[in-house]
Amino acid sequence: MASPSSLPARFPTEVYAHRLAAAAQAAAGAGLAGLVITPGYDLRYLVGSRAQTFERLTALVLPADGAPTIVVPRLELAALKESAVTELGVAVRDWVDGDDPYALVADALGGVGRAVAVTDSMPALHLLPLAEVLGVVPVLATDVLRTLRMVKDPAEIDALRKAGAAIDRVHARVPEFLVPGRTEADVAADIAEAIVAEGHSEVAFIIVGSGPHGADPHHECSDRELAAGDVVVVDIGGPYEPGYNSDSTRTYSIGDPDPEVARRYAVLQRAQQAAVAAVRPGVTAEQVDAAARDVLAAEGLAEAFVHRTGHGIGLSVHEEPYIVAGNSLALQEGMAFSVEPGIYFPGQWGARIEDIVIVTADGALSVNNRPHDLVVVPVG
Amino acid sequence: MASPSSLPARFPTEVYAHRLAAAAQAAAGAGLAGLVITPGYDLRYLVGSRAQTFERLTALVLPADGAPTIVVPRLELAALKESAVTELGVAVRDWVDGDDPYALVADALGGVGRAVAVTDSMPALHLLPLAEVLGVVPVLATDVLRTLRMVKDPAEIDALRKAGAAIDRVHARVPEFLVPGRTEADVAADIAEAIVAEGHSEVAFIIVGSGPHGADPHHECSDRELAAGDVVVVDIGGPYEPGYNSDSTRTYSIGDPDPEVARRYAVLQRAQQAAVAAVRPGVTAEQVDAAARDVLAAEGLAEAFVHRTGHGIGLSVHEEPYIVAGNSLALQEGMAFSVEPGIYFPGQWGARIEDIVIVTADGALSVNNRPHDLVVVPVG
Repeated sequence: MASPSSLPARFPTEVYAHRLAAAAQAAAGAGLAGLVITPGYDLRYLVGSRAQTFERLTALVLPADGAPTIVVPRLELAALKESAVTELGVAVRDWVDGDDPYALVADALGGVGRAVAVTDSMPALHLLPLAEVLGVVPVLATDVLRTLRMVKDPAEIDALRKAGAAIDRVHARVPEFLVPGRTEADVAADIAEAIVAEGHSEVAFIIVGSGPHGADPHHECSDRELAAGDVVVVDIGGPYEPGYNSDSTRTYSIGDPDPEVARRYAVLQRAQQAAVAAVRPGVTAEQVDAAARDVLAAEGLAEAFVHRTGHGIGLSVHEEPYIVAGNSLALQEGMAFSVEPGIYFPGQWGARIEDIVIVTADGALSVNNRPHDLVVVPVG
Repeated sequence: MASPSSLPARFPTEVYAHRLAAAAQAAAGAGLAGLVITPGYDLRYLVGSRAQTFERLTALVLPADGAPTIVVPRLELAALKESAVTELGVAVRDWVDGDDPYALVADALGGVGRAVAVTDSMPALHLLPLAEVLGVVPVLATDVLRTLRMVKDPAEIDALRKAGAAIDRVHARVPEFLVPGRTEADVAADIAEAIVAEGHSEVAFIIVGSGPHGADPHHECSDRELAAGDVVVVDIGGPYEPGYNSDSTRTYSIGDPDPEVARRYAVLQRAQQAAVAAVRPGVTAEQVDAAARDVLAAEGLAEAFVHRTGHGIGLSVHEEPYIVAGNSLALQEGMAFSVEPGIYFPGQWGARIEDIVIVTADGALSVNNRPHDLVVVPVG
């Protein structure tokens, strides 16, 4: 279905022209014959196409030293219209059932036997026959497109900020949904409506983890009824046209929290602040992760923090850079990622605080600006 | 979010036990060390898991001659509970950020260097590192699981029949939505509500192609307003718990059709009937395709039928068998697929008739039973 939003579904064509040229240059720099990009976030990034085919091959072929071609099932030609493909002058090679689309890819690359990179999401269904036709096992395009995709341009940063403001408006409304006796699923339904009402084109995910469910970082929602005394983790987000995602977590307490909950939450809040404060160009991803982890460890909560501190975000909810131990990537201006330490006590409760931040010369610019305190929802 | 439906989200455990045993046997028969199945329809088919991870590897490893293991991020352990994994006694190897999950897959396979098959949907992100650790380029699991997945068992047939009845109830309501002056998007919104109200767990797709838009087989919907005289293609479906899809197309005329439209539609109707009548065990997929195509060709409409006659259906909306020229697969009892010839006149109109049928000893059993005539919607 068409998006209900009236916001533009893609950026102006020159944005994509710039990206295609940069991607071809990166492919050349990596010594590759070119890139082969099936539908997914890379395709959307490069030409603004939201194509979603599966068993019939659609692929943008971007030679390192030539003009791009899109190989597309004739049936899907119309779906290209929304993208920038026509205005960009990308050559279109359509095919019908019975043709060999992998041979068309090889042609568009200018031959076989030379190294190519494929998009991360290319399914085995296409990757394996393509490897056979090309006579080489491809490498991952992420290794070529990483910097381009990670460093957001001004249009992308603007989109992320709007998405952040929209999800902040949803969090502002969450307390009214958290009424004892209602289920997590009831609350999630209200949040889903609010996510769209506040300007997102759709819901990407909703976590409502109440009481012991909050101790599972990836719990979604259930028929558990909320009760006074529950700590509730609410982690929500969705895409905002032209497709940039929000993702923000706040933790709520139904009624006044137990003093030990309040004490531990305060440590978590300091950990999240420390990680945000650590963000600046040149600092590594793992240093940001350590900044949060060290605060928790100093208070005996190291074991309670069972996941990485964050993930990049953009067209995809989870993308590079990952803010995790072992990632020595130096941050650059324009990178955007979550800072979301959490503490989890199995069978009891959990808490997480998450903002999306953008790296600027001066440090982190947060796109989320709701208060970070445990939000106490008055009971009855 | 949890499904709003109260229908069971998976089949009883013994169904999956049988499937796992059959899959291991098929892998052994193909001379493989085993299968590696990341989240997607094959994983759902084999163990009832709806896991949807991307960058962190979740993989069911099914050795041809040993016990299955699931490699899973510790964060995602809880999500396995809904599946049959625990009751099946599948070994669980959880991992945390920083571990090498591909090495765990190799361990679970009992070593490296032997041929393995991977699920069609495995993304390059996992396939390429896995190939490197294993030292072999995998083959497609579809070649091993094809027959198992194509031939539906009684529980699957029951689910497809229920899904078919539900989408028939939606088509019965479509005429009330087709009011001149309303847009395709308005109609699609009503249909979306009806799809869920009639028992589907969600909407998979909605095509409302009015007037010239009907000539694009994969048009979705737009802000085009319906007008008297429009021919409207409505192709809709969604999953029905435990996840089997409906998919049915009917074509509507707002007011009485032009005589030439009626004449051509009657040919299409005969073509669809002929293809359904051709279905029986031993007949090939391409013979069914030809049965529809021949009727259209005899009336000069060969060029108007621009796609294959059908696709298999089950957990996925599009799966094998494909009913297409060149597919010499002999049909077997229990196969389920669409029979959906269409005629398309660019810039003018289009029509399609689609039922899902199941192959029985006696021929095709259609799960869709709405009349096949052009549905004339009275105007004002």
